Amino acid sequence: MLTKGQLQIAQRQAAHMLAQAQIVLSLEEQAQIEIADFGLGELELTGLELVTYINTDRYCAKELVLFPHQTCPEHKHPPVGEDVGKMETFRCRWGKVWLYVEGDAQKQLGARIPAGSEAYYTVFHEIELHPGEQYTIPPNTLHWFQAGDTGAVVSEFSSTSRDEFDIFTDPRIERIPRRFEG
Amino acid sequence: MLTKGQLQIAQRQAAHMLAQAQIVLSLEEQAQIEIADFGLGELELTGLELVTYINTDRYCAKELVLFPHQTCPEHKHPPVGEDVGKMETFRCRWGKVWLYVEGDAQKQLGARIPAGSEAYYTVFHEIELHPGEQYTIPPNTLHWFQAGDTGAVVSEFSSTSRDEFDIFTDPRIERIPRRFEG
Repeated sequence: MLTKGQLQIAQRQAAHMLAQAQIVLSLEEQAQIEIADFGLGELELTGLELVTYINTDRYCAKELVLFPHQTCPEHKHPPVGEDVGKMETFRCRWGKVWLYVEGDAQKQLGARIPAGSEAYYTVFHEIELHPGEQYTIPPNTLHWFQAGDTGAVVSEFSSTSRDEFDIFTDPRIERIPRRFEG
Repeated sequence: MLTKGQLQIAQRQAAHMLAQAQIVLSLEEQAQIEIADFGLGELELTGLELVTYINTDRYCAKELVLFPHQTCPEHKHPPVGEDVGKMETFRCRWGKVWLYVEGDAQKQLGARIPAGSEAYYTVFHEIELHPGEQYTIPPNTLHWFQAGDTGAVVSEFSSTSRDEFDIFTDPRIERIPRRFEG
């Protein structure tokens, strides 16, 4: 689990990257930046920083921050009740991000799979996104993503977000107990 | 109707304001910036510039650009079939915007109602938004908005956008014939 100190350092780093991208947050939003370490205890390698602007039963919008070469691990958004599963549009705002989805595998990946977790990465269709480029991920589709050398800021536009139903390929991952902790 | 020259000038001005806000567009997106003059032939006074990133049957995301003191005229998003009407979250990214919705009226407005159109503005509950501030407008609720002295860039996160069903208070307004013209 992240310590309060680790949480605050990560929040400050994420806030700095958002400011570099000229994305303005309120002081309250800065204090509430979500740091997800997915329970693996290797935040710099496997993790994600999030600001949720709005999440209603109709739509959701977030900013995602990735530190240099930080990876959001492979997962999918399954159907929940009448919902066919979360659909997401990723728009790169700053830096560079490699996104991997189901489909023809790239032979030489741009990203580096986190050491020790190779078994839990299974989809390798690569999409490289630079600022002003975007990609929409269909519901119930495995995906993972990693920033380039400078990190990345990505806007996520989506249907309703229900993180507690996300299915991760890595059985060691716990998404929810690691939220807003510290 | 806007001439091709007027359209291109407005597109260039909107692209410049987005660049000032450090919002990157592809060349294709720059060429497709939507200029809405609402059929009134007074774009600088009454109009809106839009970039639609994504509009699916589940969610929608746009950037809205307003020139200095430009006004998006009063309208609402009514129920359409099983849809209770478009719900919108406006997040100011750059500049300043005054948003007016149904509710207690502000006595002294920050915005100036476009001259000659006073009869078509009926809601005056004022919300002033600066960068990093946002407001969510419920479905089927009258609203209008105007930028401050420098203009404004506003991100709109919403449910599905079906502009053709929008109801404007001003009967002279035509929303759709004015799209992508030129």
